[in-house]
Amino acid sequence: MRILILNPNSDDSMTRSIQRSAEEFAAGEFEVRTVSTPGSPAFIDTYQDQLAAAPGMETLVREHEVETDAFINACHCDPNLDALKEMTDRPVVGIGEASMKMATMLGHRFSVVSTGRNSIPGKKALARKYHLDQLLVSVRAPIEDASDCSNEELFLSLARTAVDEDMAEVIVLGCAGLTGMDKKIQRKLGVPVLDGVVCALIIATGMARYGVSTSKVFR
Amino acid sequence: MRILILNPNSDDSMTRSIQRSAEEFAAGEFEVRTVSTPGSPAFIDTYQDQLAAAPGMETLVREHEVETDAFINACHCDPNLDALKEMTDRPVVGIGEASMKMATMLGHRFSVVSTGRNSIPGKKALARKYHLDQLLVSVRAPIEDASDCSNEELFLSLARTAVDEDMAEVIVLGCAGLTGMDKKIQRKLGVPVLDGVVCALIIATGMARYGVSTSKVFR
Amino acid sequence: MRILILNPNSDDSMTRSIQRSAEEFAAGEFEVRTVSTPGSPAFIDTYQDQLAAAPGMETLVREHEVETDAFINACHCDPNLDALKEMTDRPVVGIGEASMKMATMLGHRFSVVSTGRNSIPGKKALARKYHLDQLLVSVRAPIEDASDCSNEELFLSLARTAVDEDMAEVIVLGCAGLTGMDKKIQRKLGVPVLDGVVCALIIATGMARYGVSTSKVFR
Amino acid sequence: MRILILNPNSDDSMTRSIQRSAEEFAAGEFEVRTVSTPGSPAFIDTYQDQLAAAPGMETLVREHEVETDAFINACHCDPNLDALKEMTDRPVVGIGEASMKMATMLGHRFSVVSTGRNSIPGKKALARKYHLDQLLVSVRAPIEDASDCSNEELFLSLARTAVDEDMAEVIVLGCAGLTGMDKKIQRKLGVPVLDGVVCALIIATGMARYGVSTSKVFR
Amino acid sequence: MRILILNPNSDDSMTRSIQRSAEEFAAGEFEVRTVSTPGSPAFIDTYQDQLAAAPGMETLVREHEVETDAFINACHCDPNLDALKEMTDRPVVGIGEASMKMATMLGHRFSVVSTGRNSIPGKKALARKYHLDQLLVSVRAPIEDASDCSNEELFLSLARTAVDEDMAEVIVLGCAGLTGMDKKIQRKLGVPVLDGVVCALIIATGMARYGVSTSKVFR
Amino acid sequence: MRILILNPNSDDSMTRSIQRSAEEFAAGEFEVRTVSTPGSPAFIDTYQDQLAAAPGMETLVREHEVETDAFINACHCDPNLDALKEMTDRPVVGIGEASMKMATMLGHRFSVVSTGRNSIPGKKALARKYHLDQLLVSVRAPIEDASDCSNEELFLSLARTAVDEDMAEVIVLGCAGLTGMDKKIQRKLGVPVLDGVVCALIIATGMARYGVSTSKVFR
Repeated sequence: MRILILNPNSDDSMTRSIQRSAEEFAAGEFEVRTVSTPGSPAFIDTYQDQLAAAPGMETLVREHEVETDAFINACHCDPNLDALKEMTDRPVVGIGEASMKMATMLGHRFSVVSTGRNSIPGKKALARKYHLDQLLVSVRAPIEDASDCSNEELFLSLARTAVDEDMAEVIVLGCAGLTGMDKKIQRKLGVPVLDGVVCALIIATGMARYGVSTSKVFR
Repeated sequence: MRILILNPNSDDSMTRSIQRSAEEFAAGEFEVRTVSTPGSPAFIDTYQDQLAAAPGMETLVREHEVETDAFINACHCDPNLDALKEMTDRPVVGIGEASMKMATMLGHRFSVVSTGRNSIPGKKALARKYHLDQLLVSVRAPIEDASDCSNEELFLSLARTAVDEDMAEVIVLGCAGLTGMDKKIQRKLGVPVLDGVVCALIIATGMARYGVSTSKVFR
Repeated sequence: MRILILNPNSDDSMTRSIQRSAEEFAAGEFEVRTVSTPGSPAFIDTYQDQLAAAPGMETLVREHEVETDAFINACHCDPNLDALKEMTDRPVVGIGEASMKMATMLGHRFSVVSTGRNSIPGKKALARKYHLDQLLVSVRAPIEDASDCSNEELFLSLARTAVDEDMAEVIVLGCAGLTGMDKKIQRKLGVPVLDGVVCALIIATGMARYGVSTSKVFR
Repeated sequence: MRILILNPNSDDSMTRSIQRSAEEFAAGEFEVRTVSTPGSPAFIDTYQDQLAAAPGMETLVREHEVETDAFINACHCDPNLDALKEMTDRPVVGIGEASMKMATMLGHRFSVVSTGRNSIPGKKALARKYHLDQLLVSVRAPIEDASDCSNEELFLSLARTAVDEDMAEVIVLGCAGLTGMDKKIQRKLGVPVLDGVVCALIIATGMARYGVSTSKVFR
Repeated sequence: MRILILNPNSDDSMTRSIQRSAEEFAAGEFEVRTVSTPGSPAFIDTYQDQLAAAPGMETLVREHEVETDAFINACHCDPNLDALKEMTDRPVVGIGEASMKMATMLGHRFSVVSTGRNSIPGKKALARKYHLDQLLVSVRAPIEDASDCSNEELFLSLARTAVDEDMAEVIVLGCAGLTGMDKKIQRKLGVPVLDGVVCALIIATGMARYGVSTSKVFR
Repeated sequence: MRILILNPNSDDSMTRSIQRSAEEFAAGEFEVRTVSTPGSPAFIDTYQDQLAAAPGMETLVREHEVETDAFINACHCDPNLDALKEMTDRPVVGIGEASMKMATMLGHRFSVVSTGRNSIPGKKALARKYHLDQLLVSVRAPIEDASDCSNEELFLSLARTAVDEDMAEVIVLGCAGLTGMDKKIQRKLGVPVLDGVVCALIIATGMARYGVSTSKVFR
């Protein structure tokens, strides 16, 4: 089985981080490759960034459709996900959707830990789109933007606040750039911590194996 | 990896059907075993039936916890699921929860095809519990109870009505006894059709592999 | 009229407290008896505790159905309530359901005062089941578990916080063990304070007198 | 205990019907009196009718507050209920609110049988106000206005359709003018049928006896 | 075009303030006149106040219907709005409804700044009526009642808290008495600040020009 | 005041129809110009079509920002609306958002009349995004696609069904191509019928005049 992970931005170092996490989870049982999106911004922050990523993402899906069993959209705001699902017969899984829906199977309510305060309104709107708004107990983000994702202590402390003050039972890492921090935070806090990349791999490989993909009946 | 599927009722022929579907999906890549629940009714229909299944289900989890990587609760009403999730450190996945949540990743709205009209209010209440009530466009069930699940044409026709009249984009088979009908209906209707047993296997093996399980932080 | 109150746990001192409150409200106008549930845990805390109480509760209903006009389920998490409602033609009223629904007739929004923080996620899930989630403004519980319910000052102070900070207009006592504190807190805070035992008596005697009970049409 | 039932309209024959139902339920155990509202229209149909009833209703409450233990607002659209609750320390119970909330304790979902099609949007808006919109499965009303409430067969047939087609488990009579039809329909359909006048008496006498009334803390 | 603004209370100084804001927005392009409501309380605070304003408001609409193109209901709790909409073929616009709905077109979520803490439960209930409850992120009001609306610094500081702590993206002035503060607060905080009087003028003049008014089809 | 209407597709005849409706409403009081979107598909049907329209729409906004007072996005699925709102300090109004929100001010519930059945799931998802899902009583569309919008009788009959069967009180024309049919249908059915182009002009000119635009505080 071959999975192609689209990193919707053009930051190759983030692409490499995602690839490392994916390979570690794959453990040789399926092939996985992560690609940056040509022509995309370095970081997907705004709605305009999402649109700027669209042509490159669509091209990647079109070019790799034949040899790919399932695609993953590896930005936690799930940019252009509806269109990608619509354009191909292969399953396409967003890391935002997969991680937040998996979180609801592991506890009553979950929090998202995010890299910047400005992402909060959009994240809550996304949760509403997925009918998860009443299950998302909080989005915790630093005052100062931390979209370089380097400060592990910071994200650990945000997750701890989500558990202690908001009574989150599950933590979702709200940015592909946080990939790899899941197990460290999980060990320290004793709650499930979900990396969207892994959650999407679970769903995407499962769908491909099962032979199901986005319904096209009314499109 | 070893998965134990609990058939919450005591009908061994349904247990064998579930096992067949599970083995087919496993394709030798993981071990899977299905067991009937001792002391349980032959069919889980009422809230009392759900409670009657509880002691046997709890015993099975307790006895098999050590050698099992994840448990599956293979009745589509997810009986006693909260308690099973709570009692063990292994992941426990309900086929109702897994199939309905996976359905939401494959189309705008889904329908459940069920075996009897009386199950409809309970199924809708379950969907609400999972915050899926606005995504569940209908529950389609025959006027006459069909809990022996033998009449494939009947369930195909219910699914067709769900697509044509209710505009369901995805069909969820609402009873473990319907296992195995997914691909036939999918081929005929051209929409994704989900067997909860398979969906739960995807999630359960994924969770076990990932090392996450039900949050215990507030229990 | 004869009312049987099931204390779903096996703590006879709590049974006696419930009986005292019930007799005081009955004031001789109807008969009321409270019984502990044989084989049940001393306190219903977890989902497993709820299931452990089920066989004893079902037995009590079956044994006393003939001479009883209505049953009350006197644990605020309403354990096994759906099944009890389903199994008998007599009305069965849960103290959680009765108190929270009565609260909504006395003010815009209400808070539940509970005995332990761990009960909060479950209480909120219960409120959602009853479609009361947007009316339940908070669940206030002590940091340290106080399930012995002895510290009146503590619960008064939690209720005060609910009024002052959460703007609750009505307080619901979230545990049968708190029975009897209602009037003291009501006098001090000047807001309605509801003991679920009394609320359930109002509803249960009313239903019995009116001749209505749980619908069996689709069961 | 003395209960005063306000018939918000000025139709004395409806007032007498309400009084008959109330006396029958009271069975001599409490005093109950029903009064027409002076200056009110003959039937409360529109939002303007509701306002036209307000001065008379407020006057009745003010004049009878001393000797009355609880008030009942006996129009199923609960006209001016918030203001009446606010103006007196006595409990005030609306027959719409009481009957629809009691219905939710007797089955998964309920329908309201109403006297005219034009009442449907308002009834649904009222249900939403009470957070019951997802529990109200339908409002069934005749094509031709039937606000004289004389045709029992018509309302029986509407209730039957609600059960058969909408899968309502409980029927609520959506007009005080339908008082007295509850038991006949209940016997024929085998589902609980609720007369708001009786439901409100249960709640109002219970509140008065318990010593609780509308919260005034933020008014 | 002639717009009549009803100030639902009888405070002529507030009427003059509203008129000033309205004239400034009109800038001579349409005629606008504001009138106090005869027989109404000096301030609309409670549900009873709302009813007390009803006869005067209805009289004003009836008397001015012929020469008026659209009416505005200039109290932010939209008192008696449904009845006014129902009674005339002219458009009637409430400043609460117009401002809160316009707010949702300018940002993800909004806050209302109000004059007194006691108004909060009612304001939230109003938002729910309009299906805006999940978009209204907070209602900010001073501890001490400030219904004279004179303290601009106070309302600025409440708005700032709404932005900083509640992450409101838009501020709605929750009282007609606050009219005229919009631009000052908007300049200081850099977020859109909406005066309901202006919002209602936009909608009301638009509806009148377009030739649409409240549907009468089921009334 | 100068308004620029973006027709998100590249169909110049639809652009001319929109321009005619806009000019008629403007009646010389403000300038309005409608432009087709270069590089866009002839009809916006799918999620991919929406993305295909994005670059052209963004370019139009950027190029015309200086001399334009407000922009209108004249496709009823509001393609790329969040991004357009975000990128400019001018107000941007979608015809879907404006018409559906204005509909809620004119009746209890509304229906959308659309050109094709396949648009229904997307339209309902859009309504949910705007928190209007419980107010949108139905989307009525022909079995056969009618995206050329020429058959007035067809759309009249769909609207009639929405009123008669779904009890819609207001009709929203669900496609810019239906512009100009509003008054004819309104006269025949006697309910308000809303053309999104006009609704958006009302809101857009109002916002521009008022000096408010999309909040940028968290972007």
